[in-house]
Amino acid sequence: MPTIALTPAQLLEHWLGHRRLTRRTIEVFPEPALFAHHAPGMRTFADMVAELNTFLVPTLLGAISGAWHWPTGTRRDATTKDDLLRAFDGVSGELERLLPSIPETRFLEIDEPLPGRREPVIASLLYFIDNEVHHRAQGYVYLRQLGLEPPPFYRR
Amino acid sequence: MPTIALTPAQLLEHWLGHRRLTRRTIEVFPEPALFAHHAPGMRTFADMVAELNTFLVPTLLGAISGAWHWPTGTRRDATTKDDLLRAFDGVSGELERLLPSIPETRFLEIDEPLPGRREPVIASLLYFIDNEVHHRAQGYVYLRQLGLEPPPFYRR
Repeated sequence: MPTIALTPAQLLEHWLGHRRLTRRTIEVFPEPALFAHHAPGMRTFADMVAELNTFLVPTLLGAISGAWHWPTGTRRDATTKDDLLRAFDGVSGELERLLPSIPETRFLEIDEPLPGRREPVIASLLYFIDNEVHHRAQGYVYLRQLGLEPPPFYRR
Repeated sequence: MPTIALTPAQLLEHWLGHRRLTRRTIEVFPEPALFAHHAPGMRTFADMVAELNTFLVPTLLGAISGAWHWPTGTRRDATTKDDLLRAFDGVSGELERLLPSIPETRFLEIDEPLPGRREPVIASLLYFIDNEVHHRAQGYVYLRQLGLEPPPFYRR
């Protein structure tokens, strides 16, 4: 039996802490900048959040079932900050609901979430979290460029 | 016995993948910009990397022993890109050497790495990785501002 470095309950708590921080980051943005400001060659923060909103549930469903169905691109339904936050909250609710139903043997199971990408299911989940941390940090730079203070990183 | 979501070996592999990506990010920076370019109110990328270089080994030693000794601040010994990369590689070597010597019961044990911050040791380790992902992503924005292409995020 391999050593346990992390339990599913800790993974969920860790992940929800990141969701709360990302939500606070969205909240600091003035609505126009959220949908307009970006660095050269990069997307707006709203677009990055829309990517997270689009792909989290398919990631969890794949982790649960082994059937990975990816949308063809980011869905950009939200055009206001309120809509974006509402969609974000909906996805956080799905995370809380779906993560505990990942069968316990799945985390270490080798799967293929994308053609040619073979890895344990936990690696696909951590990849999603890393992607959220990555884009949120880019939002931090955008906020600084706008003269705004991002939320404290250590607070979850 | 709680379910295993992640093993120590997977944690190490995951972490070393992030180290390789951070290293590639440092490499893309021209030396002057690495030590000079920054967003308003933020540090240079060299300074962020120096923070990672300063705090990784103390984090691992605390995880191993339960004795958390934090340096009083970031050590900024490296003044060239080569020096910074050499220090970074040294720390990656320490990660490979020290992580496997974390006793297996420690990951889930509740500890207090900072006064008042009580959490399982795995949470402190994930925090360190998140901090690296966070700062590296800020380096990505700096590179875009400099007209340079960051390394692909999915490649580890």
